[in-house]
Amino acid sequence: IQELDMQIEALEKEGFDHFMLKEIYEQPKTIKDAMRGRISSKDGKVWLRGVDEYANRFVRADRIIIVACGTSYHSALIGEYLIEELARINVEVEYASEFRYRNPILTERDIVIAISQSGETADTMAALHLAKERGALIYGIVNSVGSSIARLTDAGSYIHCGPEIGVASTKAFTGQVTVLTLMALNLAHRLSTISNTYYRTLLRELELIPGKVEEVLKQSEHIKYIASEIKDHNNALYLGRGYNFPVALEGALKLKEISYVHAEGYPAAEMKHGPIALIDENMPVIVTATNQSAYEKIVSNVQEVLARKGRVIAVVNNGETAIAEIADHVIHIPPTEEPFAPLLAVIPLQLLSYHIAVQLNRNVDQPRNLAKSVTVE
Amino acid sequence: IQELDMQIEALEKEGFDHFMLKEIYEQPKTIKDAMRGRISSKDGKVWLRGVDEYANRFVRADRIIIVACGTSYHSALIGEYLIEELARINVEVEYASEFRYRNPILTERDIVIAISQSGETADTMAALHLAKERGALIYGIVNSVGSSIARLTDAGSYIHCGPEIGVASTKAFTGQVTVLTLMALNLAHRLSTISNTYYRTLLRELELIPGKVEEVLKQSEHIKYIASEIKDHNNALYLGRGYNFPVALEGALKLKEISYVHAEGYPAAEMKHGPIALIDENMPVIVTATNQSAYEKIVSNVQEVLARKGRVIAVVNNGETAIAEIADHVIHIPPTEEPFAPLLAVIPLQLLSYHIAVQLNRNVDQPRNLAKSVTVE
Repeated sequence: IQELDMQIEALEKEGFDHFMLKEIYEQPKTIKDAMRGRISSKDGKVWLRGVDEYANRFVRADRIIIVACGTSYHSALIGEYLIEELARINVEVEYASEFRYRNPILTERDIVIAISQSGETADTMAALHLAKERGALIYGIVNSVGSSIARLTDAGSYIHCGPEIGVASTKAFTGQVTVLTLMALNLAHRLSTISNTYYRTLLRELELIPGKVEEVLKQSEHIKYIASEIKDHNNALYLGRGYNFPVALEGALKLKEISYVHAEGYPAAEMKHGPIALIDENMPVIVTATNQSAYEKIVSNVQEVLARKGRVIAVVNNGETAIAEIADHVIHIPPTEEPFAPLLAVIPLQLLSYHIAVQLNRNVDQPRNLAKSVTVE
Repeated sequence: IQELDMQIEALEKEGFDHFMLKEIYEQPKTIKDAMRGRISSKDGKVWLRGVDEYANRFVRADRIIIVACGTSYHSALIGEYLIEELARINVEVEYASEFRYRNPILTERDIVIAISQSGETADTMAALHLAKERGALIYGIVNSVGSSIARLTDAGSYIHCGPEIGVASTKAFTGQVTVLTLMALNLAHRLSTISNTYYRTLLRELELIPGKVEEVLKQSEHIKYIASEIKDHNNALYLGRGYNFPVALEGALKLKEISYVHAEGYPAAEMKHGPIALIDENMPVIVTATNQSAYEKIVSNVQEVLARKGRVIAVVNNGETAIAEIADHVIHIPPTEEPFAPLLAVIPLQLLSYHIAVQLNRNVDQPRNLAKSVTVE
């Protein structure tokens, strides 16, 4: 970045103050790009070349193991929920750095998927080398065309979201989740693990997601105001259940990365097993509650936080009232089918961390201590 | 507690200031109790009645799924490392609250193990009911004899560590890890997945663990001094790799629970993917580095923290010098075989959180907002 001429940089930001904000706003387009040529709700088809080519291996797989680091680890967790729920194949998600050093159980019947924006993440590469040695099919979900992971893998899917400049990943995350969603749908259809009606419903809904992301982005000014209300706290908790649990982890990571605020994500029900001791008026709690299932449990989690004087910022569906009436701040987003919740729910969390970082005068695109691509082990 | 007569309470604390401290000091005995009648290094035998009784199911299991919450979730993660490495059976660990709501993939060839000190944890119970419906063998690792989980399960192993009064679990954690260790050794021997020589070595070493815990406890005064040096920070990071990664999570949870300090555990290599942005002179970093494998990687993790002016408290083996020479504070513990590292490495972290809480005048045995047994969902 520093080498670029400032004028060129300004042009490249296309009027946005930071690359990160530009990339957040690109997501309606990049999610569409990740789906382009890969889905037709009219024909009831999902194509994903790598999966189609190795369909035999996928449908007979004992397990799919997804290895990743950082933000990609969070999209991997969403992939686990998607593939297990829709295609009924066992999925295990591992930190690449842990997987590679612990002599993992691997056979030729396993598939190892690596997720990496840069395609150069050192620990993820090493995990793939190990998996290849053991005879597993290795598959890459990467952004950078022709990167080391793309070249090493047997097959893969690019997320096609263009260069990501901001160190904190945003559009690459939603691109990864989009590809994992397509993979789950492709496999579910092959394996007949969901009804044709539900499959068709999901395909139609997925095509609507870019437009709904556009709707969420209109909340930016409101989220900027919420940011100004909570920016001076040094800590934050992010809670979610089900598909929204990895979203909570990702929201917390964004805040850590660019605002240097100690934020932590948790599955909401784990609160009572320890973290709730941290709750007082100095601890903002961001709850992502767009779930349809176990909804009353999330409402009671919010009540528990409020009873301890915690401040609640809630992301809920348009029209929701139970949480909206009691939370300190509410962000409404369009409802969607539950498996697609992360693609919408993560957007306000990206914006929240962005606005907090800007208001704290952080270097948003180049946060301290961090590199865009972690090529050391 | 409040109903007890103060004199009786004082008697029950046996001279310790708090139940938690008494329970930390009981661990040489409770770990021995968890092993009593279950191991003989002389005969090369490990007995665990529940496993022996259902040996056929265990050796043919497709997967072992461990469900748990809070501290028990951390012992479950150690169980995953132990059983996968030694017995080569696939293990998946799930938050009970997440598992039960997401239509998990389960067959009659799976074994579901529930870990719970009280045997009454609501989410864990619900997960077991679900697993039972799907025909999985269900197994309990609990402390409270005759508790709901003990009665519900097909088989199980008590950890036999006596009543735990302190809300923050200590001796129950090491009891759970001891039982999981015995289970891994029993299965490894049945399945011949480790050499007989290594098996015998591990058995002999395991019998030495209570004595080594005794050694670690002698560091309490030194740890109290370290506590006084870092107690005024509102945040902390705990790092570990491999077997020490769940130990880092557990160390952080202890500090959250009783000191209300926002502590978070991470696999050490994930630092570079975000959390390192948090590091400055106000962020103590507790590194558990008793590993033999990937040691140079941990040394470089420590160097990265120090380069960002973070303060490092390191738990290392007696005689270790590479980290000891550069860390701000060092706690030396006796070396052991790598799979048993958690049983020793967690002790200084329990003591550190205890001393910090006392110095901050917290209610150690009854921290705010927390209940000993979480019987609501």
